[in-house]
Amino acid sequence: MENDLLKDLKEAVLESISPKTEERAYLKEIAELLIKKIDRIACSMNLKDVSAKLVGSAARNTWISGTHDLDIFIMFPGDASRAELEKKGLIIARMIAEESESFEERYAEHPYINMRYRGFDVDIVPCFRVDSASCIRSAVDRTPFHNEFIKENIQGLEKEVLLLKQFMKGTGVYGSELRTQGFSGYLTELLVIKYGSFENVIRSACDWQPGTYIDLNSHGIMKHKEPLIMVDPTDPKRNVAAALSLDKFCMFIDSCREFVLHPSLDIFFPRAVIQIDDMKLFQKLKSRGTAFIAITFKTPDVVEDVLYPQLYKMEQAVVALLEEHEFKVLNKGSWAGQNTVVLLELISANLPALSKHRGPPVWVHQHAESFKNKYMAAEDVFTFYIENGIYVAEVPRKYPDAYLLLKERLTSCSIGKQVSFAVKDGFKVLRGSEICSIQDPSLKLFLMNWPGI
Amino acid sequence: MENDLLKDLKEAVLESISPKTEERAYLKEIAELLIKKIDRIACSMNLKDVSAKLVGSAARNTWISGTHDLDIFIMFPGDASRAELEKKGLIIARMIAEESESFEERYAEHPYINMRYRGFDVDIVPCFRVDSASCIRSAVDRTPFHNEFIKENIQGLEKEVLLLKQFMKGTGVYGSELRTQGFSGYLTELLVIKYGSFENVIRSACDWQPGTYIDLNSHGIMKHKEPLIMVDPTDPKRNVAAALSLDKFCMFIDSCREFVLHPSLDIFFPRAVIQIDDMKLFQKLKSRGTAFIAITFKTPDVVEDVLYPQLYKMEQAVVALLEEHEFKVLNKGSWAGQNTVVLLELISANLPALSKHRGPPVWVHQHAESFKNKYMAAEDVFTFYIENGIYVAEVPRKYPDAYLLLKERLTSCSIGKQVSFAVKDGFKVLRGSEICSIQDPSLKLFLMNWPGI
Repeated sequence: MENDLLKDLKEAVLESISPKTEERAYLKEIAELLIKKIDRIACSMNLKDVSAKLVGSAARNTWISGTHDLDIFIMFPGDASRAELEKKGLIIARMIAEESESFEERYAEHPYINMRYRGFDVDIVPCFRVDSASCIRSAVDRTPFHNEFIKENIQGLEKEVLLLKQFMKGTGVYGSELRTQGFSGYLTELLVIKYGSFENVIRSACDWQPGTYIDLNSHGIMKHKEPLIMVDPTDPKRNVAAALSLDKFCMFIDSCREFVLHPSLDIFFPRAVIQIDDMKLFQKLKSRGTAFIAITFKTPDVVEDVLYPQLYKMEQAVVALLEEHEFKVLNKGSWAGQNTVVLLELISANLPALSKHRGPPVWVHQHAESFKNKYMAAEDVFTFYIENGIYVAEVPRKYPDAYLLLKERLTSCSIGKQVSFAVKDGFKVLRGSEICSIQDPSLKLFLMNWPGI
Repeated sequence: MENDLLKDLKEAVLESISPKTEERAYLKEIAELLIKKIDRIACSMNLKDVSAKLVGSAARNTWISGTHDLDIFIMFPGDASRAELEKKGLIIARMIAEESESFEERYAEHPYINMRYRGFDVDIVPCFRVDSASCIRSAVDRTPFHNEFIKENIQGLEKEVLLLKQFMKGTGVYGSELRTQGFSGYLTELLVIKYGSFENVIRSACDWQPGTYIDLNSHGIMKHKEPLIMVDPTDPKRNVAAALSLDKFCMFIDSCREFVLHPSLDIFFPRAVIQIDDMKLFQKLKSRGTAFIAITFKTPDVVEDVLYPQLYKMEQAVVALLEEHEFKVLNKGSWAGQNTVVLLELISANLPALSKHRGPPVWVHQHAESFKNKYMAAEDVFTFYIENGIYVAEVPRKYPDAYLLLKERLTSCSIGKQVSFAVKDGFKVLRGSEICSIQDPSLKLFLMNWPGI
């Protein structure tokens, strides 16, 4: 990377993603307004030790222009009862939400409210104010500690964080939700603190190995098996990168090397894939000479963090079912819109009418005799012979067609609860061109990028 | 096996296969005539120590009615020169052959003559008369020793040998030539001597294991790895059953058990398979849902003991070629008439247009980078992605069609000399119904019994 080119590139990216003064001022105004309202309501409810706090990237100046997310925590005393926090926290949040454009109650470890409020996507989350991150009572209690740590250590590096976040977005590895299994905002910030700049993170990552271990405070006390271990500076037992999958870890390494060799704006802002029509898409898939089979069903009404792990589990179960019946799976993937599509690409969807069933060696008298008796008595055996000293019965294959196998046996697969309900409610198995006929632009995109991300 | 039933069965079989008095007398007459002629010629050539001898089953009364084979050895002194034996042996044999209906010179370790003579198939074989079978100068020198051993030990058991030979013929395991890899006549005789009767051989074989070791004189001095070891009573280093394959060994065990459970004449004289027409044969093969590919070429003009090992080697080489290109071979086999057919049965003769080429893990920086550069530069790569931490390039498959693979690459396979010449002289690759259209009844039989023997 030449320095001048890199400097120009960084400036161009920042020009596009740094919030302008007015945008910043507006966010600050709204955040302060909400905090004031919450504090006032708490006071009126005689909750003296309860107060609101802005956390997340909005609080640490590491948000990208255009992403208007606010995370406001209602902090209860560490010794408050869980029942009180849940009940009173929700009362306060609901009173705020009454003024919103729209809102819904969501449930993580305890209930919280998500609302649209004057152009912002706001989470109002009750939590306990504990003494340290290692003695939290609920997962969200950790966030305020992260907030403090980053605020203390990020000064002067905020732009580096913006660049790294945008780089990760552009390369498809940003986001720690279970669908993406990539890098969280907090992890991105810690990487910048560790390496000191955007380009230092990029250069270092080029040589990362699975098991890369980063411990800012040298206080890690646990062994981890994940590809990247970033010891949480606020909680030495925790790996901040626990959700990062091996493939997203590798995709990041790959993108960093790509950027070092060919720095470009495109890697931050990849060009949109041009949509092609159904016929061309079908031709593209057909040219692979493989067999596509899709299972579709109505997407269950659950959050993505519940849906995607179940879909990934379903993919595994379906591949296992197919392989148990000797079908070879080349690639697999899931897509969820209104309907969900689990897509399998096979070497072939058809196998011979028979399968070779190998019995015991002929000289193992008893076993050999009962094997022979069993298959000689069966009427539908194709043929029976000895091969390499072993009895072989050629028996009719139960499922010579993968399509019928899936239709008949899918519901016996072990798949996640909600997905399983949705499948049992009704599913279709589609083949070849039928798959391309599902009308959804994002499914087309998914197919056009097949395989790969 | 009930004794009465068995007794009746044995009688019925013997009635059919024991040579009648006239047949015996005629064989004796011809054998003695030929011996006298040879002795007279030798005498006229002033070869005082040279004399003829009848060996083989004709000499030991263990021949089956209708098989008119005579093995007559011209025995030279043990200290004669090889040149003299070859030259003068052949002169004598040729003089005898002049009176035959037809003859040809054949070559084993040294030349001999095979002729049709008054209804007999006669081999006239020069050999050395050595002191013991352990100091033979040529493989055929062993035969006279076998002859003496059997003649001394078989008296009273000749009918048992006939029964066992017919049983082995009926079950397809008789014959030690390299095509069959079954039981030789000598081995059959030794088995009867060992176990004392036809039914004792059958009963004992039901529990044979690979490595079954029989040493009539308790003088064996070598370790052998073959499934059956019958130490040659005339030469302790040699395994008489060395040519017996594992599958023929197992087929014999299997047939013995079958006979013990269901004694019947059919096992000695299996019913001929009824010929079916091309269309039905094709339907039968098609119903398997597999892909048949045959390689055909003009059968090279060599004896079966040279041809079949080369065909078996060719089968292995062709299977290796197919599997190297990811085709799955279910069954293989060879048949030789005027043309030779090497038949392969595949799960499918077609594979996808692409194959997944797995590179190094992404974190092995140098290797990963050069793999990526190589495939990103190639124009015909389908797609490139990361799977389980490893770079995967989907590249065009060189041979998506097994038919084209064989057409283009067969001649690069390592196959035996004569077969290789024949293949290079010209071969065809046939698919599906084309195979059934080769007009030869014995090929039809081979196909109707597919797979199996």
